[in-house]
Amino acid sequence: MNKKLLIVSTSTIHGSGYLEYILDEVKDFFGGVNSIVFIPYARPGGLSHDDYTALAKEKFSGLNISVKGLHEFDDPITALKDAEGVFTGGGNTFLLLKTLYEVGVMDMLKDRINKGMPFMGTSAGSNITGLTIGTTNDMPIVYPPSFNALGALPFNLNPHYLDPDPTSKHKGETRQTRIEEFLGFNDIKVVGLREGSWLRVNGDEIELKGPLSARIFEKGKEVYEYQPGIFNI
Amino acid sequence: MNKKLLIVSTSTIHGSGYLEYILDEVKDFFGGVNSIVFIPYARPGGLSHDDYTALAKEKFSGLNISVKGLHEFDDPITALKDAEGVFTGGGNTFLLLKTLYEVGVMDMLKDRINKGMPFMGTSAGSNITGLTIGTTNDMPIVYPPSFNALGALPFNLNPHYLDPDPTSKHKGETRQTRIEEFLGFNDIKVVGLREGSWLRVNGDEIELKGPLSARIFEKGKEVYEYQPGIFNI
Repeated sequence: MNKKLLIVSTSTIHGSGYLEYILDEVKDFFGGVNSIVFIPYARPGGLSHDDYTALAKEKFSGLNISVKGLHEFDDPITALKDAEGVFTGGGNTFLLLKTLYEVGVMDMLKDRINKGMPFMGTSAGSNITGLTIGTTNDMPIVYPPSFNALGALPFNLNPHYLDPDPTSKHKGETRQTRIEEFLGFNDIKVVGLREGSWLRVNGDEIELKGPLSARIFEKGKEVYEYQPGIFNI
Repeated sequence: MNKKLLIVSTSTIHGSGYLEYILDEVKDFFGGVNSIVFIPYARPGGLSHDDYTALAKEKFSGLNISVKGLHEFDDPITALKDAEGVFTGGGNTFLLLKTLYEVGVMDMLKDRINKGMPFMGTSAGSNITGLTIGTTNDMPIVYPPSFNALGALPFNLNPHYLDPDPTSKHKGETRQTRIEEFLGFNDIKVVGLREGSWLRVNGDEIELKGPLSARIFEKGKEVYEYQPGIFNI
């Protein structure tokens, strides 16, 4: 399959504006694309679909790519059928997935991704490209009809992957403990993608990009680090 | 209704053993009770039902209260029907709720709680006493048939409530942001219960205990702090 994906841990890193640190990669990824559909359903901080889409419009206008929010179309399925490319923003993963199911676009999204339409996601928008959303960090503010996601990757993601703070006195589980609990009930690899990291997918080739290693969790294996480069996990 | 609940944010605080900091309260709460049923389904860190129950058994033997794990009974519904008291341990809230639904004991638990059987929960075991598990911090490692919980309290809980770290460079949402997102889709009060805090419920009276204030979130209101004492939110 001829997948083209840009799977980004976070839209924004500390001390930098929205998508700024990754703008060269985004430009390259959407090279030749004149317009994209933005999926605003994750609504970070309760932002409206319009306001969230405006943020994407402004940022992509600098790349000469026009943006229209999926919520602006009368027929979202046809909108995705015809889209040159898609960008799904971050926010709450449960809300995003529930809305995608409700709007009825999951199958069309999968189909277009499998046929090579460029798909970019950040944070929650990246989470949904995995097999399930079972390794999201988000709060389950709404109940989706399933945790099954787009399955565009052969594993799950944990964006914003966070190393344990050795000085912490807090008794909540560390991220690693949570993911290991997930592995106890799911035979699904998990890629912990730190802020500042992203995956670029071309067909079957997956490349880890950015300055940081990723943390890889597999059932029955010791957790390990993967350095930037072509992925072979 | 004659509810008797002990709703604890965390079983363990920094620098202290399992349940140690709250043992006097537990002793008082279960005064007159000779045996309790322990619900081990949340399985913290993937601990087996037996090992988790052994931990509770050991701690409660010091209070002269015998403990039997709900998984040890042939008929869990009858076990809860006959229980003098119940303690539900922490771990993963999704796993706990899913298992309670699968085992078929949700209705019996609600019924016994409403009729005054003492029920103690810590962490995930506290989460399930709220209206829904929509404000858990846990990872959705399994898919429960519903997010609806026991509804023994007229609000939701966020145990292990954590104040934002002003020095953090991490771009994941703060706990407050997550709960505010929840309020955007649910008209349910949320009590952020810090580690070291607990609620003691006697009938309709709810008391916040421990040295710390709780953080209260309500739809359309500014978030506020509630000091220890009788709750009136």
